[in-house]
Amino acid sequence: MERGDLLSAACPSREVLKHMTSRWGVLVLLALEGGTLRFSALRRRIGGVSERMLAKTLHWLEGDGLVERIAHEVVPPHVEYRLTPLGREGAARVRALADWIEQSLPEIAQNW
Amino acid sequence: MERGDLLSAACPSREVLKHMTSRWGVLVLLALEGGTLRFSALRRRIGGVSERMLAKTLHWLEGDGLVERIAHEVVPPHVEYRLTPLGREGAARVRALADWIEQSLPEIAQNW
Repeated sequence: MERGDLLSAACPSREVLKHMTSRWGVLVLLALEGGTLRFSALRRRIGGVSERMLAKTLHWLEGDGLVERIAHEVVPPHVEYRLTPLGREGAARVRALADWIEQSLPEIAQNW
Repeated sequence: MERGDLLSAACPSREVLKHMTSRWGVLVLLALEGGTLRFSALRRRIGGVSERMLAKTLHWLEGDGLVERIAHEVVPPHVEYRLTPLGREGAARVRALADWIEQSLPEIAQNW
């Protein structure tokens, strides 16, 4: 596939890239790699995220078919989130980047 | 290294992640993978970026030691940007993610 695609403003991949690499998108993908989580547990897992931004991020990732929302029909409502098979593939690429940053941080920080 | 690090609000890796996965950070890293570029050429290569945002993004990536600014002492001034060896490593991880998105776009777009 042509490398230039994503560099063009009209490329539809840019939307997906925006969702996956958004401030909270990356962290949601990493957190859900560990398994299915309820909204409240996911929010506790990701330091600093607001309820509103977490809901928005999950909505984006759901819309791209990367995250699945599972609503259990009980009282009170019980909603869980998990990666789809496609989401697991994407999350693995995000994790490779995150791992590299964590490993390289000492070298990166020498420039600060 | 502990996977939980990046999920914590206090983790210094979050800053680097923010720079590398910022809207234009990703595209600068991908564009510079092709080789050294002048500011104006880099701006033409990346559809939609403003002069201000490109300068800001390059400043971030330079501060993390991922991009190197080369000023040639000529009149008129001639400034080029290229990836450092560390930047090439990081760019490869960003490219793996970008490639996956481009390849998976047909499957992702079925959810739209």
